Amino acid sequence: MVSYRIFAKKILIVRFDNRKKLGILGGGQLGRMLIQAAIDFDLTIKTLDPDSDAPCKYISHEFVVGSLNDYDTVMAFAQDCDIVTIEIENVSIEALEALEKQGKAVFPQPSVLRIIKDKRVQKQFYQQQNLPTAEFILTDNQEHTRSFENFLPAVHKLGQGGYDGKGVQILRSADDFRKAFDQPGVLEKMIDFEKELAVIVARNQEGETKTFPVVEMVFHPEANLVEYLFSPANISKETEQKADAIAIQIANALGITGLLAVEMFLTKDGQILINEVAPRPHNSGHQSIRANDVSQFEQHLRAILNLPLGSTKAHSKAAMVNLLGEEGYAGEAVYQGMDEVLAVEGVHPFLYGKRFTKPFRKMGHITIIDQNFEKLKEKVIFVKEKLKVIAKN
Amino acid sequence: MVSYRIFAKKILIVRFDNRKKLGILGGGQLGRMLIQAAIDFDLTIKTLDPDSDAPCKYISHEFVVGSLNDYDTVMAFAQDCDIVTIEIENVSIEALEALEKQGKAVFPQPSVLRIIKDKRVQKQFYQQQNLPTAEFILTDNQEHTRSFENFLPAVHKLGQGGYDGKGVQILRSADDFRKAFDQPGVLEKMIDFEKELAVIVARNQEGETKTFPVVEMVFHPEANLVEYLFSPANISKETEQKADAIAIQIANALGITGLLAVEMFLTKDGQILINEVAPRPHNSGHQSIRANDVSQFEQHLRAILNLPLGSTKAHSKAAMVNLLGEEGYAGEAVYQGMDEVLAVEGVHPFLYGKRFTKPFRKMGHITIIDQNFEKLKEKVIFVKEKLKVIAKN
Repeated sequence: MVSYRIFAKKILIVRFDNRKKLGILGGGQLGRMLIQAAIDFDLTIKTLDPDSDAPCKYISHEFVVGSLNDYDTVMAFAQDCDIVTIEIENVSIEALEALEKQGKAVFPQPSVLRIIKDKRVQKQFYQQQNLPTAEFILTDNQEHTRSFENFLPAVHKLGQGGYDGKGVQILRSADDFRKAFDQPGVLEKMIDFEKELAVIVARNQEGETKTFPVVEMVFHPEANLVEYLFSPANISKETEQKADAIAIQIANALGITGLLAVEMFLTKDGQILINEVAPRPHNSGHQSIRANDVSQFEQHLRAILNLPLGSTKAHSKAAMVNLLGEEGYAGEAVYQGMDEVLAVEGVHPFLYGKRFTKPFRKMGHITIIDQNFEKLKEKVIFVKEKLKVIAKN
Repeated sequence: MVSYRIFAKKILIVRFDNRKKLGILGGGQLGRMLIQAAIDFDLTIKTLDPDSDAPCKYISHEFVVGSLNDYDTVMAFAQDCDIVTIEIENVSIEALEALEKQGKAVFPQPSVLRIIKDKRVQKQFYQQQNLPTAEFILTDNQEHTRSFENFLPAVHKLGQGGYDGKGVQILRSADDFRKAFDQPGVLEKMIDFEKELAVIVARNQEGETKTFPVVEMVFHPEANLVEYLFSPANISKETEQKADAIAIQIANALGITGLLAVEMFLTKDGQILINEVAPRPHNSGHQSIRANDVSQFEQHLRAILNLPLGSTKAHSKAAMVNLLGEEGYAGEAVYQGMDEVLAVEGVHPFLYGKRFTKPFRKMGHITIIDQNFEKLKEKVIFVKEKLKVIAKN
């Protein structure tokens, strides 16, 4: 007789019900991969996006075109949804708050979004919670920012509305102040970091948390986007544990239900500083689809459905290369070199269904699996060299 | 400088083009999982199925309701498709032949379907090709079948139209002849087998072949369906190599482009006999989604798009449990015990989006990952015990 008890550690109260309708605010690539995971749970999916040709269009049960920031649009959209989630932070939090008051399940909670959406509030939250982060100054406008020349070099971030490298400026000297934002922002001390790391943590309603292995990100110098990453990060056990503990600490401090992606700096003297967080599936977790027991997308679903969280164990070492629109090309996308990279063992394409490319647009990503870290690096170089997103003539 | 040549073993001629429209005949679970893989290649998907509520309905770009066996319906359906494939054999081969003549890419080729679709032709093909299979007699009708009492015990199979255990009867003694089919069929000598094995092989237009690891299937005694399987099979290296070689031999003999699932018997004296084949993704390969580098579905796409085939390496041991409608229940499906099985490490649900359950209907499957074979077996028992597809009151 098998002892069942050893497997079923914790029986949750909420019963799995596949007839739930999940509303997703945002129909981009994160929504697309979330839907791919939701298909296996047989959830009914309704998506809202301002772009009538968004990546989620053809794989949602219902696809609604409309503004994510418009209160009435979001309210109307969500009326027949059982659970509402997001794939982008830049949405009407007021509407989400009203939906929550109506008794709808809204995850991540609007209260969490309030803290994260504004980078000024986010930084103050870290300070209050004694969470390690770079020194900062809140700035009102460009003029105000100019008064902190002594604080340079620093990174100037727009309080609200930034995404994918937009809303961030590096200010090295007084000359750069002309690039400073003329709206409320935060000036962060430039960190002389060794590596940029990220940990994705999931937390369900019961407060169960699970972290994915720490990853190491390399940013594109110009586009300020993740260019590629390695999972797990090539760091000491001690750093790994520290990063992991910080991610769990933030998730618990926020009380979030859902995924939280925590981007961090590993400083040259071995400190970990929180850079910023995102309350949703994140670019730094895409490799989990191929390399871990559960993907970040399935994990987000488990968290917001209040199901037991899945094992995040990595069965393979992996790299993830973002597929950005090539400079100098705009128009209908063509994936040059795909045949060649697909001939490489362990290479898997993820195209986002975006018809048009433009410089640095995120068109897809490539996951590479290899148990040998050096080979993984060689394959990253090969993929970056051979695979280009250009445009049709 | 990295040597790229080592990775890109073979550069194919056909260039990857994500703007291709793929027509799928059949909109069931195999089509559904095929589409899930196709999303990552950004293919445009059009699906044909007689059931207006088929599992592929909401994830196809276009979903057409119509008969798969009607020549005109299939012809009209496929006119704007670049590539046509199937997820079920029971389709109008005449239409596929006409489409092929028009110059369309039809994979698997209609000539292959002609051989496989009729089990009588299939068996004769093995004989001609000197491929090992159970002894058989072609039967015209029930009366004719009765004349082979000396051949019993035997398995009587309907020549055409059988699927999922339908169209198969076990004839142990003369009494059972009343169950014999009254249409053209094949009477196969009953094999006293040790195990039932399966190998899925992919072959692209260039003739490149790749096999998935041999799996071991356990059939449901009543429903004559795969109940669960283990990957890789618990067999000797020698048996493994023999099974693998036979699968490649059949694929090459057929000249198939696409996937071929080869079901085999391992006899008590260590022989391998081909049971039957299916020219498409197959129930015996579902675990590949979670346990292998490429899934059978991605591999089928690579084969029919003439892309390099992916590595089929298993990164994990896996079991797959079919989720069949519980006896005594018919109606809107409810998945009882899902919370409990999801609490078990390595358990992943795949629900097929079928609204209504009935006894033995394939409603989904569960993949279980565990590096330890004994634990895997325990988890299979747990899942089979706890998870039931019942109906709403």
